[in-house]
Amino acid sequence: MKILILGADGYLGWPTAMNLAKKKNNVFLVDNFIKRKIEADNGISPLYHQTLPQEKIKIWNKMFPKNKIRFFNGDLLNYKFVYEILQKIKPDAIIHYAEQPSAPYSMQGRSEAIFTQKNNVLGTLNLIFGIKKFCSNAHILKLGTMGAYGQPNIDIEEGFIKINHKGRSDTLTYPKTPGSIYHLSKVHDSENLLFLTKLWKLKCTDLNQGVVYGLDTEESLLSKSFRTSFHYDHIFGTILNRFLTQAALGIPLTVYGSGNQVRSFLNINDTLQCINLALKNPPRAGEFKVRNQFTEIFSLNDLAEKVKNACEKIDLKVKIKKIKNPRVEKIKHYYNPTNKSFKEIGLKPIKLNDKFIIDSIHKIIESKKLIKTNTLNPTIKWRS
Amino acid sequence: MKILILGADGYLGWPTAMNLAKKKNNVFLVDNFIKRKIEADNGISPLYHQTLPQEKIKIWNKMFPKNKIRFFNGDLLNYKFVYEILQKIKPDAIIHYAEQPSAPYSMQGRSEAIFTQKNNVLGTLNLIFGIKKFCSNAHILKLGTMGAYGQPNIDIEEGFIKINHKGRSDTLTYPKTPGSIYHLSKVHDSENLLFLTKLWKLKCTDLNQGVVYGLDTEESLLSKSFRTSFHYDHIFGTILNRFLTQAALGIPLTVYGSGNQVRSFLNINDTLQCINLALKNPPRAGEFKVRNQFTEIFSLNDLAEKVKNACEKIDLKVKIKKIKNPRVEKIKHYYNPTNKSFKEIGLKPIKLNDKFIIDSIHKIIESKKLIKTNTLNPTIKWRS
Repeated sequence: MKILILGADGYLGWPTAMNLAKKKNNVFLVDNFIKRKIEADNGISPLYHQTLPQEKIKIWNKMFPKNKIRFFNGDLLNYKFVYEILQKIKPDAIIHYAEQPSAPYSMQGRSEAIFTQKNNVLGTLNLIFGIKKFCSNAHILKLGTMGAYGQPNIDIEEGFIKINHKGRSDTLTYPKTPGSIYHLSKVHDSENLLFLTKLWKLKCTDLNQGVVYGLDTEESLLSKSFRTSFHYDHIFGTILNRFLTQAALGIPLTVYGSGNQVRSFLNINDTLQCINLALKNPPRAGEFKVRNQFTEIFSLNDLAEKVKNACEKIDLKVKIKKIKNPRVEKIKHYYNPTNKSFKEIGLKPIKLNDKFIIDSIHKIIESKKLIKTNTLNPTIKWRS
Repeated sequence: MKILILGADGYLGWPTAMNLAKKKNNVFLVDNFIKRKIEADNGISPLYHQTLPQEKIKIWNKMFPKNKIRFFNGDLLNYKFVYEILQKIKPDAIIHYAEQPSAPYSMQGRSEAIFTQKNNVLGTLNLIFGIKKFCSNAHILKLGTMGAYGQPNIDIEEGFIKINHKGRSDTLTYPKTPGSIYHLSKVHDSENLLFLTKLWKLKCTDLNQGVVYGLDTEESLLSKSFRTSFHYDHIFGTILNRFLTQAALGIPLTVYGSGNQVRSFLNINDTLQCINLALKNPPRAGEFKVRNQFTEIFSLNDLAEKVKNACEKIDLKVKIKKIKNPRVEKIKHYYNPTNKSFKEIGLKPIKLNDKFIIDSIHKIIESKKLIKTNTLNPTIKWRS
């Protein structure tokens, strides 16, 4: 399969690229390095130095001369670039990670809010128009987030819900309650994609992903240059990755607010598993297939306790500290999302366990010197 | 009250300005004339020559020296302009008509789709950030459209719906089914406004307006220079205004598709009535008040028949012609929207009747020579 991966310089983009290339797909990458600029602007950096994709693929292509990867530097907001690349490659599948992925970043101020919605919504629009024009048979896999559903008091379904109302019924889009400008951008682009997929008979899988955690995939271990863009900071760092980093540093795990907030999670290797499963099960033309992509559910308190308990096994004393929640969210809430559409096509979840936590902490300890501890605590407040 | 009207050069903007100035409000106008550019780009023009607002207000201010209006030329995408104007005026209320209002225009191609979502979504974001910064107590009235609800098989409520699901319940945003890039932009900006209104304790009224019809308001009759931007063309022309124009020309009323599509409607004078009612009933801080702004419901066939029947009274023979629907919509559908929140605060609807239809046709006949008949028929197709 010819697979185009957009946003290939990120936490998930590069591991996905290697995984799919290894499986004998013809893999093409795109990135515009905007995340590297945002990192620099905010004085944050991932745990490991990130080799440029242009250099990574040189090493990869030497290791695997039969599974070569190509890279293109470009921006989805530049439709001429998008059109050129789609016309040239005519991909069978497009994995779209190329969106600004941070809720705190999007809440920093006007300029970041505008950038987030412009990049995510208009970039995706350019992409859809290009797909219609040059490769309307391609399978689009757009990464979204479970976070966009918010904290409704009813079960979270996959994209749609049957509503019975005043003696009548209809199946409509599941009403989401996005809690940041970033989450809103993910709702907007899904709505655009839903409409245009049906209208133009495209094939789209909308993946609502939980919070991803973990440092390594099978392929990322092959070279130091292949290591993932693991973030622990308050902007791009996701919660479990931050807890692991705090544990490695021997500083308290910081829980935002009550800690009763519940979220869905998955191991980075399960992201790869899900992407592979979704690729193997494309929607039919005109179908907008929504899949909730996660494996387990934890409250922030559960997660902190899990890390703390695992640390006790290696005599690492870890404290848990509650700090004022910079976000605005329900203090206590019902949370019951389904992931049945992935289970139906064979998802075998990797469970979060003590071994994973301990191994991860040991790895982070090796790079302890590189950690910028001043970037751990949240400085961006939803109400400022 | 100090009232800022954004998009004051349009069909509703200028009539609203005059109406509110007459009622002794301090009225400030903003427009960037982008609609005039789109008109020129597409070879279309409103029925009456549109005097520039700068000139209109000279005439108005002479007529009503105690109810002066001021005009500012600027673009909501330019946040510096937005900030400057809000800081200077510190309005009590902001009526936001400044969005690209045409579904067909938004479906013309990539560039028009991008422009529509950029202008409508990002322009509104700049506005909200400005309001938070300079006049967080101001009442925002954002014009949306009933069309964004689509054609659901259940009753259409006002913005929110109580959903009972698997033994639990929650009141969530009403799931809309927007049928064009334009309608999607209206869903996106409402979602942004809902989130930020609650987060920052702003005051927002979201008006989902039906299809507006009519040529005159009390004030527009005061001078030829005050006449509304009445559109009959396939881009900005709304259905009843087009039917009236076709009747005046003695050419068939063109019904798109089956004609069983049902829509909600209101007279332009009821737009003014609703704006006044909404202004007098502001939401409390942090409240996002959704009101469905329409008075009557007709199918396209009903409407064509109504016009035809009225014409018979003046011995005008009118034919009805069904043409291929350029849009993609349900051929037959349930439609039962409520407008109870306006009824509760005193809306007295002006009903569509023969007299109105006949008077309007007579007025249009007076300007018959100016009509560009080649701009009546739809050339923009949803599936091209």
